[in-house]
Amino acid sequence: MTLGKGRFDSFSDGVFAIAITLLILEIHLPSWVSRASDSPAQAKALLEIWPAYLVYLASFATIGIMWLNHHALFDAAQRITHGVIVANLVLLGLISFLPFTTEVLGQLGLTQTTVVYYGLTMTAIAFAYLGVQTQVIAAHPGSAQKLTRWNIVGMIAYPLATVVGFFVPLLGVVLIALLAVFYALPRNVRVARFTPGPNMDPGR
Amino acid sequence: MTLGKGRFDSFSDGVFAIAITLLILEIHLPSWVSRASDSPAQAKALLEIWPAYLVYLASFATIGIMWLNHHALFDAAQRITHGVIVANLVLLGLISFLPFTTEVLGQLGLTQTTVVYYGLTMTAIAFAYLGVQTQVIAAHPGSAQKLTRWNIVGMIAYPLATVVGFFVPLLGVVLIALLAVFYALPRNVRVARFTPGPNMDPGR
Amino acid sequence: MTLGKGRFDSFSDGVFAIAITLLILEIHLPSWVSRASDSPAQAKALLEIWPAYLVYLASFATIGIMWLNHHALFDAAQRITHGVIVANLVLLGLISFLPFTTEVLGQLGLTQTTVVYYGLTMTAIAFAYLGVQTQVIAAHPGSAQKLTRWNIVGMIAYPLATVVGFFVPLLGVVLIALLAVFYALPRNVRVARFTPGPNMDPGR
Amino acid sequence: MTLGKGRFDSFSDGVFAIAITLLILEIHLPSWVSRASDSPAQAKALLEIWPAYLVYLASFATIGIMWLNHHALFDAAQRITHGVIVANLVLLGLISFLPFTTEVLGQLGLTQTTVVYYGLTMTAIAFAYLGVQTQVIAAHPGSAQKLTRWNIVGMIAYPLATVVGFFVPLLGVVLIALLAVFYALPRNVRVARFTPGPNMDPGR
Repeated sequence: MTLGKGRFDSFSDGVFAIAITLLILEIHLPSWVSRASDSPAQAKALLEIWPAYLVYLASFATIGIMWLNHHALFDAAQRITHGVIVANLVLLGLISFLPFTTEVLGQLGLTQTTVVYYGLTMTAIAFAYLGVQTQVIAAHPGSAQKLTRWNIVGMIAYPLATVVGFFVPLLGVVLIALLAVFYALPRNVRVARFTPGPNMDPGR
Repeated sequence: MTLGKGRFDSFSDGVFAIAITLLILEIHLPSWVSRASDSPAQAKALLEIWPAYLVYLASFATIGIMWLNHHALFDAAQRITHGVIVANLVLLGLISFLPFTTEVLGQLGLTQTTVVYYGLTMTAIAFAYLGVQTQVIAAHPGSAQKLTRWNIVGMIAYPLATVVGFFVPLLGVVLIALLAVFYALPRNVRVARFTPGPNMDPGR
Repeated sequence: MTLGKGRFDSFSDGVFAIAITLLILEIHLPSWVSRASDSPAQAKALLEIWPAYLVYLASFATIGIMWLNHHALFDAAQRITHGVIVANLVLLGLISFLPFTTEVLGQLGLTQTTVVYYGLTMTAIAFAYLGVQTQVIAAHPGSAQKLTRWNIVGMIAYPLATVVGFFVPLLGVVLIALLAVFYALPRNVRVARFTPGPNMDPGR
Repeated sequence: MTLGKGRFDSFSDGVFAIAITLLILEIHLPSWVSRASDSPAQAKALLEIWPAYLVYLASFATIGIMWLNHHALFDAAQRITHGVIVANLVLLGLISFLPFTTEVLGQLGLTQTTVVYYGLTMTAIAFAYLGVQTQVIAAHPGSAQKLTRWNIVGMIAYPLATVVGFFVPLLGVVLIALLAVFYALPRNVRVARFTPGPNMDPGR
């Protein structure tokens, strides 16, 4: 079955917008600080949670860039097949999972375990995005089907950042944040774009 | 009274997208783990909450598929009557309730009580969906009005999974997750589609 | 200044949809129940929080009906003036406040204080809605400007339910839930509709 | 690259609507009050958290007005360049951060630290908005490029309120709330509007 593109887009946009905004709900103050603490102690508490700010930044940037590329991909797509819908639900389910990794990192700190957990989630997102792309390409048989630089970078970089995070947790998170910056560079955003071929029936 | 279909759709889509994204907010780390725990203990904590992951998966898939079928149903519908609106509000109210069942299962574990509670909520959603379908069909008098395989499966399968969950809690949740997979199969998605009849006035 | 109606509608719809879905996040299990409790104790905990279910129902129904009437009002409106925007922000701010009253009632129980607090919030919402209506009417000078049954009921019924709640808390909440049912009756939904007059310039 | 304006708008609207509605989730009852407290003690608890209400008001009004001006700005914009997208993501990231400042102020009270933290966030938002404006102007070369009263007020007023908050915390928050009221005045809303010049190519 095919699905109206308008509602497919608006549902996806909704989940991206909600997931990106929910990230903040999982950042919390340390439990030792309270209304009774003096002002310098409160300031110390707000600075102490800097890893949470870093993770917020990395996750926000990743979801934002992911939304941007999702967009570019579906702007050119004309057929929303069953395969596309299922692959997209898997991607959205993993994107929606990100606020929990923020809680994990904020509550347990930047440790071997938490950063690897975060890196594995990011790796799963990169591969899920690849799955969506594959399904979109499969739905448009006559189109150009080449693996882009974007895909190769993602398939290598996220697992690599996870491995780095196992040895140097902080560096792993910084790498994931830098990857979002890399994808945000003007010349990289368009790379992910799906290009319909000349002999493709636009269908509906 | 009739309501503009555009805003009816966008309100429904919004509630589906928000409910599916809020699920994650109700998953929490066990209370015994903290920043002071060593890395292997933290890994143990992240694995220990696997029932929460399973329920997240089952609920996410159910809302996703429910949204897909809701869509197929209203793509063909042209009249949003008062009865449709009220039945739809009941359905959305139950969908919005799902994040709480995730909290219940995550916080209390997979027990007889929690799985039956989850199964009853799923059963209520299946019947509420049937109510929406009935109202849509009633609003289009000349259309084909037959009970589909989808409805029969849902009316039997969710109560059955609830009963199974009473005896073997884990199996009950697995059955509910499998039901979502069943509804996600290509040949089943379209079955729920409401088919307008030949002598139906498109109205407005 | 005037604002594009499309984005005014979608922003309002968004806030309604989010507020209605967030209600559930403020329902929590009693603190005495845990993973260690046996199954019957867990069932007792899930039944014990029935006032939270009742308040969820009352608030969900109220926001749903409020959205429905907001819709009917703005379907006929063609000018979104500065006054309409400000009055609408006040209404949305109060609607968004409702999840907190759910937390208050759920956490502190159905007491004189919590039910009066809930009733006062509902009263403020009814008057804020009246304010939006007044601004919409003011923006369409040639239109029929009559106070509807809906307004009179709301201006009297919500303060009355608040007073009743002061003496019999449970009855106050039940009355507020019944008011939503009253507004959901077919003949009442349309009453709130703003009717543009014959000599009205549609503007833009 | 350019992005479809429709989806850019709807993603931005979504984040604004969600952030404004999430504010309430960070308001909580004092920990000393419970179901066991008597009714007057509960009333005292609900009054005691008045700073949280004040901050809710200030943040809700600021996001609301910010959304209104964002709107006016992009109504006239026709080119969504890469620079606009990145500047807009920075703005949305800071808007989404506001619910956390609400938690900070609600949980730690109106102290030197918390109010300065709040003021710095508001200052960052004002400058991020300026960044979006600058990018929109840069994307429309032939248009009128003048700094408006709005910008000058924001660049001075938010840092000033932060400094005031350092000495008199309550006054800092009141000033921030009054700034939102100032921007809500009819003659100020339109000031921020971007005016396309006569020799501008609408492009797409």
